[in-house]
Amino acid sequence: MKVVCIGSGNVATHFSTAIAAAGMELVQVWSQSQEHAEVLADLLGATAISDKANIDLHADLYLIAVKDDAIPEMAALLAGVNGLVLHTSGATDLDVFPAAMKNYGVLYPLQTFSRTKALDFSKVPLCLEAKDETILSTLKNIALQLSPLVYEVNSPQRRILHLAAVFACNFSNHLYAIGQEILEKNQLDFEILRPLILETAEKVQHAFPRDVQTGPAIRHDEQTLLKHKELLTGMPELQVIYETLSKSIKKTV
Amino acid sequence: MKVVCIGSGNVATHFSTAIAAAGMELVQVWSQSQEHAEVLADLLGATAISDKANIDLHADLYLIAVKDDAIPEMAALLAGVNGLVLHTSGATDLDVFPAAMKNYGVLYPLQTFSRTKALDFSKVPLCLEAKDETILSTLKNIALQLSPLVYEVNSPQRRILHLAAVFACNFSNHLYAIGQEILEKNQLDFEILRPLILETAEKVQHAFPRDVQTGPAIRHDEQTLLKHKELLTGMPELQVIYETLSKSIKKTV
Repeated sequence: MKVVCIGSGNVATHFSTAIAAAGMELVQVWSQSQEHAEVLADLLGATAISDKANIDLHADLYLIAVKDDAIPEMAALLAGVNGLVLHTSGATDLDVFPAAMKNYGVLYPLQTFSRTKALDFSKVPLCLEAKDETILSTLKNIALQLSPLVYEVNSPQRRILHLAAVFACNFSNHLYAIGQEILEKNQLDFEILRPLILETAEKVQHAFPRDVQTGPAIRHDEQTLLKHKELLTGMPELQVIYETLSKSIKKTV
Repeated sequence: MKVVCIGSGNVATHFSTAIAAAGMELVQVWSQSQEHAEVLADLLGATAISDKANIDLHADLYLIAVKDDAIPEMAALLAGVNGLVLHTSGATDLDVFPAAMKNYGVLYPLQTFSRTKALDFSKVPLCLEAKDETILSTLKNIALQLSPLVYEVNSPQRRILHLAAVFACNFSNHLYAIGQEILEKNQLDFEILRPLILETAEKVQHAFPRDVQTGPAIRHDEQTLLKHKELLTGMPELQVIYETLSKSIKKTV
């Protein structure tokens, strides 16, 4: 199976590495920047290209892992190929592909990737959608070589997943950052908070979050809520966040 | 070292178990409910009591792990003992103990405990405060038998820690719950979100959250922010949370 990777960012890097590890042959890495393409291509024994005209049009699989607004152009460019063309975006519908294209689909990894942190790809949920059932079946076979966590998700559901991920991942991370900010203002090290953050996430791996909610808001502990409001004096933005989320937690009882 | 545990809830259970595992002798478990006291006492070979008059006043260590508003009464009850009396509350100052008491301090575990989930106590940060330096030194020796993560934290700092923990832990868990709510409304399983939640927490174990923030708000991706607002139509409370947190993230750049 010959694979061309379009893109050289976080998602492209982690996907290409997993693809190579699964025994598929990465033949080309394309990036607007030849230098960036080379970093990834050299790592995996592929050819680095930055000229779109040099993209091999006879590969079996094309993985488009570029910024969302660059996907339509790359999809159009590959309109005539026989290979399977996939994009990897949570916020982009299936119909970004030209209807006349033979084989296309979506392979969306619901995970947060960092260049600096190694990731066990078998822990990455892969959300699949394809032009038709036959292609979906092919796509599923490919996906299962990368991760056992494979889900069928259509375009409207993928938008919802992306939204839920913003709450559960992006917003949670921002709350960690606020925790750090509060600690540092009081000469306390973020280090002390790290085990609690990890345990909070581990707790919901086998339970539902609403069943393990703790803290003053769920206990309707008005005295502590008031004390915390006082501690946040001079930080009006954090007060608003504190009140908004506490109010929402109280309503869940 | 003879230990009396006052309380039989989550914190009492996890602490007593760690104390027994460290080779200290748990002699009594007191609880208002004899039945609850027995569950924990039987587990660890201690005597269960529910009458305050039966508390052994000649133990070496008293661990008060009851609800915050019950601490003053238990502290007063133990005013005359020679042993070291500790409370375990994040929201209660050191001066809850009568000044005339000989040996007292605080042993606050900055962690979230569930009765149903086993916890590696060596991953529990222990925050220490004591009446004086000599007692602090004794307390530190005891704490280090339970966990290597030992910090000196005074009462005002402990209040701040508790506040930071509400943001990083209680509020994050609520955002997980919102993620689940959004998914279930759209016939998607929470299971698909769990690996992302775990990876988000693992990412900040060796990095600072503000350095690894991802998502549409930090990218100032107004188009996606708008799409998400539309998806939240009919859920005004979630819209407010989405906007409040997105606004706060945008400001961090």
